[in-house]
Amino acid sequence: MLCLKVPTDEAWASAALRDVVGVLADHAHCEMKAASNALSLAARHPADPELVRALTDLAREEIDHFQRVLALLVERGVTLGPPPVDEYAAELRRATNALSRDPGAGTLVDRLLVGALIEARSCERFKLLADATSGDGSHPELRALWEELLAAEARHYRTFVDLAVRAAGGDRARVLARLERLAEAEGAIVASLASGASRATIHG
Amino acid sequence: MLCLKVPTDEAWASAALRDVVGVLADHAHCEMKAASNALSLAARHPADPELVRALTDLAREEIDHFQRVLALLVERGVTLGPPPVDEYAAELRRATNALSRDPGAGTLVDRLLVGALIEARSCERFKLLADATSGDGSHPELRALWEELLAAEARHYRTFVDLAVRAAGGDRARVLARLERLAEAEGAIVASLASGASRATIHG
Repeated sequence: MLCLKVPTDEAWASAALRDVVGVLADHAHCEMKAASNALSLAARHPADPELVRALTDLAREEIDHFQRVLALLVERGVTLGPPPVDEYAAELRRATNALSRDPGAGTLVDRLLVGALIEARSCERFKLLADATSGDGSHPELRALWEELLAAEARHYRTFVDLAVRAAGGDRARVLARLERLAEAEGAIVASLASGASRATIHG
Repeated sequence: MLCLKVPTDEAWASAALRDVVGVLADHAHCEMKAASNALSLAARHPADPELVRALTDLAREEIDHFQRVLALLVERGVTLGPPPVDEYAAELRRATNALSRDPGAGTLVDRLLVGALIEARSCERFKLLADATSGDGSHPELRALWEELLAAEARHYRTFVDLAVRAAGGDRARVLARLERLAEAEGAIVASLASGASRATIHG
């Protein structure tokens, strides 16, 4: 799906749906981190108003989703705890830094492509949750959330890829080749985390 | 005005209006920092959904204002540079840390009150800009911006004070006493920065 190399195994969705509150809490933290990252990336590139506009639009939408997920947790009487250690994102950044640099692209392109990969993986997982609950009328508000989030994450994925192409001076072929290499690293990370204990997370 | 102890001297507005682009650029950075700070404070208190909701609402509004100010700069063909060193905010945090702690209140109350003071000072300065341009029909979009921002900053000031009272267990008298002490420190900082070179800033 999208650029992903390693599909999430099918057992993931049923495990995740046994801990919906865990998935919601995990995703609330993801949206908050995504908003902060988008703002921090925008603040580093003040001289590029098109990039800054796109990233701040993104941050606002991540805040909206954060608030929506938080409201669902509050309705359920659940208190959001401190954010868990985000092994997936940390490993992804480490793997990106370990890859030899593309001299024509640079750090901004890589940061945008890491953003694209995170969105792609979220999109895939929300698609699995939406599919797994498609015949289940018991929680329509959750099913609507999964569908809305999967559409939003797909849009964000395309935004990040387009911004990366723009940051690479319009060289789409080079950016897609770089994305391919990063997607291989991401697939390896997902495969290794899947054997761990914490499965009910969007990126675990 | 609001809780401020030292009014900005009247010459400030005319100096600032000679460098409107400088004021807009400075304020764009302020809005971006305010959005980031609100998100970072929200992320530190995940278990308090009312606080988190208020701070993320605030962050979204700061992003909106940032985008609006950025659009005015783009219209004027101005490129936003890197953020200047924010002496005012740094001095204010230093002064707050140097004050003896209020054992009943704590760090969150102080961080919220520092936010309140920054909003109060912004509000005062936008009021000066709005007053100074009240008879001037040449830039209606700027006058509308000053008026909208002064109203927003006054609202944010009240939000921060109310959140601080809530964080102090509802003890408004204690929080207002603390705010009074912090406002004295803020006044001294503003007076000392006013003698410096960079006057066309919202907090300089």
